This record gives sequence, structure tokens and C-alpha cells, in this order.
Amino acid sequence: MEYKESFTRYSRRVEEGLRRFLPATDTRPARIHEAMRYSLESGGKRLRPILLLAAADLFAGDRKRPDALPAAIAIECVHTYSLIHDDLPCMDDDDLRRGRPTVHRAYDEATAVLAGDALLTHAFALIAESYASESVLGIELVRELSRAAGSTRLIGGQMEDLMAEQEGRATADQLELIHANKTAAMIEASLAMGARIGGADDSSREFLRSAGHDLGVAFQIVDDILDATGSTASLGKTAGKDARDGKATFVGLHGIDRSRSIAESRTSAAMATIRGLPGDTEFLAEIAHRMARRDA
Amino acid sequence: MEYKESFTRYSRRVEEGLRRFLPATDTRPARIHEAMRYSLESGGKRLRPILLLAAADLFAGDRKRPDALPAAIAIECVHTYSLIHDDLPCMDDDDLRRGRPTVHRAYDEATAVLAGDALLTHAFALIAESYASESVLGIELVRELSRAAGSTRLIGGQMEDLMAEQEGRATADQLELIHANKTAAMIEASLAMGARIGGADDSSREFLRSAGHDLGVAFQIVDDILDATGSTASLGKTAGKDARDGKATFVGLHGIDRSRSIAESRTSAAMATIRGLPGDTEFLAEIAHRMARRDA
Repeated sequence: MEYKESFTRYSRRVEEGLRRFLPATDTRPARIHEAMRYSLESGGKRLRPILLLAAADLFAGDRKRPDALPAAIAIECVHTYSLIHDDLPCMDDDDLRRGRPTVHRAYDEATAVLAGDALLTHAFALIAESYASESVLGIELVRELSRAAGSTRLIGGQMEDLMAEQEGRATADQLELIHANKTAAMIEASLAMGARIGGADDSSREFLRSAGHDLGVAFQIVDDILDATGSTASLGKTAGKDARDGKATFVGLHGIDRSRSIAESRTSAAMATIRGLPGDTEFLAEIAHRMARRDA
Repeated sequence: MEYKESFTRYSRRVEEGLRRFLPATDTRPARIHEAMRYSLESGGKRLRPILLLAAADLFAGDRKRPDALPAAIAIECVHTYSLIHDDLPCMDDDDLRRGRPTVHRAYDEATAVLAGDALLTHAFALIAESYASESVLGIELVRELSRAAGSTRLIGGQMEDLMAEQEGRATADQLELIHANKTAAMIEASLAMGARIGGADDSSREFLRSAGHDLGVAFQIVDDILDATGSTASLGKTAGKDARDGKATFVGLHGIDRSRSIAESRTSAAMATIRGLPGDTEFLAEIAHRMARRDA
């Protein structure tokens, strides 16, 4: 199947999953459920759930394996919660996300805090409900997700980022650590969770996780480059904000050209690791390639 | 064993569990791990984890069952996260909690949001790590906890509470719903999780859960009474704040005397349910009794 066709097919599954696996907006209290859907339905490329689904398919092949879709939606819930909280006035104070007002602008701050909390909690509820009859897998998924989202990784990365911003500088090492945790952790988890659902052996799963790490770091570098060079309209979020906030970025530390070349070498490393795995790795390798080449 | 002796023994187990099952404060980034411990170590009666441990003991008897302590710590993590977020300026805007500055006062708002997020996430990580070899139980615990903490219960209750405050009034029905979700949900979950770990049959577990519901509603009514009648020093949090905030409370709606009698009849109902369960129910019945009689 062509790459674009596969991507569209995966995207549709994710959108269908978001409709199916989130509480209806008229569930009481409606305000919190509307805010949860508002944030999830504002588009986005759905990269993490698509990576999860593709990883599951890579290893499952023709074997009958549990449906990966609930786990994919759980990953998107956690990703979206982290965006809502990162956008809060006390954090990055952002008004725009994916071209629309952020949750605390569209609703209010209290609702944004609670909607984020609710999405994070729902991610674990969804896994527990959906994989109850596959409890060994279910517990592994909870473990993967809670580690990646925890205080030493996703949350820890955001904390380090805020601290570096306050200090007004970050060393190359610090920045690598921030990216590894703030961005790469959830991409690693997407691939590792997909691998577990697909029934990958331990070593294939860990290879894929390490590809996720390279991919995540590359993805964040490209994000920094786009923030420095893109427009608010093309990004759907406030451009040039990192520099104005005095945020440590790859571009600030290494310049555009060197940042591009680091992103490219990380992407090549990830693609090589992916291509070394058994099965039809073409879609995953291509998505890795495009993640580094994106313009928004 | 005497009640006080049992209570002290359970309290010590919980304090030991908090030391054992939370990341060390020098784990990187230290700031987030310090804030997590700061909030957890500011005392509190540890009612929820103690209820969980006692429920597990009630059903386990002399049988060998999995250790309930990690689940008890997970409950306390979720409870503490909800306090941190509820205290935020955009929510109840409270400066004092358990006699000490709230997390956003002791640190800052961003750290408070992240510390809450981290405690919530850690609760699920802790269950997944600790019950990995008992995966059916582990998944049930994740399910209980994520439902009780989710958008229709703990978080939903806080959302309804904020909405009622903005509207400036709440009906008796609304208030019952707020209490059922904001307070009772986690008490029900504590008992139900303990019952699952202790190996209770389904019907005993559901009886205990319904006792938890009555107990939770009574507990919140007593909280409202104490807020209206207590001092800041005795409460360790800002007294009289509910009335000033125009918050809907039982006392505001029913008056002190009627509130006391509702709390007492709910407590009696809970105690009768508990005493109807098999095994030595004395400790649980006594703690229920004292929860309604407390003065802080």
C-alpha cells in the first residue's frame, strides 16, 4: 500500500477511536467533557497514536492480536493533556494551539487544569477497561505509559525546561535531556506499546524504543527550527515564542544549519534501526523520514 | 487489639510506604520530587490509605494475599494531587493546607500543577509495578482508581463545585452530587480496592463500597460544619473560606443542626453495613464512627 493511503487509513482509525473512546460531551458535568473533546478535536497530526498502531501492525502481521486502538487513543489523551497544561498561563502561557484558542482561553484556567487531569486519568481508565481480559498486556501498557508520562520523563522534562528558562540558559547536555524527556519519552512509549500489543519479542521492542528516542529528539529539533523560521499561520501556534520567552532551543544553541544536520543524523539512525526489524518496515521508516521533513 | 493501637500501626505502615514508594527527592529534576514529597509529607490523617489497608485485612484474614501497601500509597498520591490542584489560584485559591503553605505558595504555580500531575501519574505507575505479577488484580485496581478519580467522579465533582460557586447557588440535589463525587468517590475506591486485594467476594465488596459512599458524604458534611465553626489554627486550612467564596455547603443549605443529623444518619447507615460483613469489622466500624465525630 502507498504511504499516503496507509497514513490516511491510520488517521481515520484514530479519529474514529477518539469518537468511540471518549465520554460523550453531554455526560455530566458537560463542561469538562466538552473541554476534553475540544482539545482532542482540534486536529493535530495524531503522530503518536499512528506510530502505536503501525508498530502493532508491524509485529502482529497476520496473527490475531488485541485491538491496538484503545491504547492509541490513550497515548493521544496523555499527549493532549500535556499540551493543555503546558499552555497554561503559569507555564508557557500560550493563546493558540493548532490554530485555535488554547483550552484556558476558550474556557477558563480551572477548566483547563481539570480537562488535562481528566484526559490523563481517562488514558489509564481506557487501558484498564479495554485490556481487562488481557491483563498481563494491560499492566505492561499502564507501566509503559505511566513511566513515559511520569516525573522523571514527560513531566520532568517540562520541569527542567521551565527551570532552564528561568535561569536564562541551558547547556547542550541539559537541552538534550529536556528533549529526551519532554518529547522523546512519549514517542518511545508509542512505539514500545505498539510493539507489546503486536507481540514483538523483547529485543525487537527495545530496538524500536531506541529508534523512538532518536526520532523524538529529531522531532523536537525540527520543532525548534520551525518555531524560529515559521509563521504563526503555518504553525497554528504562536511563532518565535521560544526566543521571546528566552527558552533554550537547539537553534539558539547550535544555529539553524547545525540543528538541521543533527536532526537529519538522528532521523537516519532511527530509520536504520527500523529497517533492521523483521516484517514490512516501510511505513514506519517513511513516517520517520517525514517527521524530520515536515514544515508545520 | 485496641482501636488506637491499630490506627497507629496502620499510620506507621502508611508513613513507611510513603518513604518507600515515592521517588527520592534528589531524583532529577529534584524540584518536582521535592514538591511531591512536600505535599505528601505535610501530615494529614491518611484516612484513605488506612481504610484501604483495613479493608484488605478484613477480607484476607490469615490467608496469604498481595501486599496492600502500594495501592494504599497510590490512593494517597491521588488524594494529594487533587488537593494540590484544588488549592491553585484558578480553583479555590488557598494559601494554607494542613497548617503549611500550599504547594503553589511554597514553590510556584507551575511546579504545583506539575507536582499534582506527577502524583496522579505515579499512582498508576506504582500499581503497575507492584502488582505486575498479579495482573488481573492490578488491572482491577487501575480500573477502580481511574474511575473514581475520573471526569464523572473526583474531577467531575470539582467541576460541578466550581460551576455551582459561579452560579452562586446549588440545590440540595446538586450538592449531594458534588459530595458524592468530590469526596465519596475516593473513599469508596479505597474500600473497594482494599476489598479486591483482600480477596472479598463481589457482593461483600459492593456492600463495602456502598458503606464508603455513605461515609464519604458524611465526611464532607462534617468538613462543611468544621469550616463554618472551626478556627484556621485547629483546621490547618483557612476557616470560613467556603462562606466567603459563596461556596454551596451543607451548612448553608440545611443549617448546622440538620447537617449534623444528616451526617449522623449517613454514618449509622455505613456502620450497619460494615458490621454486616464477615470477619472482625470492629476497626472499620470504629473508624467510620470517628470520621463523623472528628473536630479537625
